[in-house]
Amino acid sequence: MSSDRISAQMDFLTTADQLKSVSRATTLADGSRSENSAEHSWHVALYALVLGEHAPEGVNTDRVIRMLLLHDLVEIDAGDAPIFGEHDAAALAEQESAAAERLFGLLPGDQGRALRALWDEFEGNVTPDAQFAKALDRFQPPNQNLASGGGSWISYDVQYDTLVARVGSKIAHGAPMLWDWLQPRVAAFFERMR
Amino acid sequence: MSSDRISAQMDFLTTADQLKSVSRATTLADGSRSENSAEHSWHVALYALVLGEHAPEGVNTDRVIRMLLLHDLVEIDAGDAPIFGEHDAAALAEQESAAAERLFGLLPGDQGRALRALWDEFEGNVTPDAQFAKALDRFQPPNQNLASGGGSWISYDVQYDTLVARVGSKIAHGAPMLWDWLQPRVAAFFERMR
Ligand SMILES: [Ca+2]
Repeated sequence: MSSDRISAQMDFLTTADQLKSVSRATTLADGSRSENSAEHSWHVALYALVLGEHAPEGVNTDRVIRMLLLHDLVEIDAGDAPIFGEHDAAALAEQESAAAERLFGLLPGDQGRALRALWDEFEGNVTPDAQFAKALDRFQPPNQNLASGGGSWISYDVQYDTLVARVGSKIAHGAPMLWDWLQPRVAAFFERMR
Repeated sequence: MSSDRISAQMDFLTTADQLKSVSRATTLADGSRSENSAEHSWHVALYALVLGEHAPEGVNTDRVIRMLLLHDLVEIDAGDAPIFGEHDAAALAEQESAAAERLFGLLPGDQGRALRALWDEFEGNVTPDAQFAKALDRFQPPNQNLASGGGSWISYDVQYDTLVARVGSKIAHGAPMLWDWLQPRVAAFFERMR
């Protein structure tokens, strides 16, 4: 029945509200406070909408936007794992998978399976859509840090080589044109910090 | 040149970050603080993704998601006008139009015009896509208020009839199935508050 379906969907959407209380390592562009994962999700979806034209051939921007709207929901249970922090990758993957099971499980069965598959695709980072989505997820924080004057690079004492290895490689992989644009800007920032 | 294009797009995207600092009348579902317009934009885009199946025939959910990602950007300059507050509608429309001019004007010309047209379509509230998007924008706050135990209904001393007139009518217009679901829940809440 359609009313039961809407009730299940509203359970999911009201639970999703908790993503607004998950704090990230990255700050707002003005450095005034930490960004939360809900507003980050909006921001990267907007990145996809605006920068989709620079995606490699065959990428479907609307699917990428959908992935990015969902990509961090698991953090409601598992928290945000800062990219420059240390964590047990296997334990985190298990927590996130349990979170996906619980959260997408709130939805009607068919829809829960479809959205879980989209999140799995994002995590798998194999399809061009997932690689572009992941590249945008990695591309936004350096731009926030450049705007705020260092942000999480300062708080995590990040070196240029670490940044290229952990972040640049993923951006270059899924969105080479965006890395070509960003790389000289980041290099100049770290040069000035020496 | 593609690099200049990306620079203009990044100007727009970094300016858009300011939407995270625009506060709304509605609170988080747990009532802990006011929601900001960026996380609200994420939430209603997620509503569209999940509830798109209940849209009237012919609605394109992906276009609705794009509209909702953009719909509040003008608040960066014009602020959020609470739906139950008093304001000069003509003056507000003028402020928002000037904001759209400035913000979409940061983008490359062709793209700025396309996204401005999408925002104008949302504001116009004439096409089925715009009416469904607008309905979702009106549907989310009552659900937040039901979850938090009253929220902006309490702070603005809202009566049931006012709610039906200002909010229910727009939801019923663009998403009748969602109003059918919500109306008895809202009516029961106001009945309990008597
Ligand atoms: Ca994350």
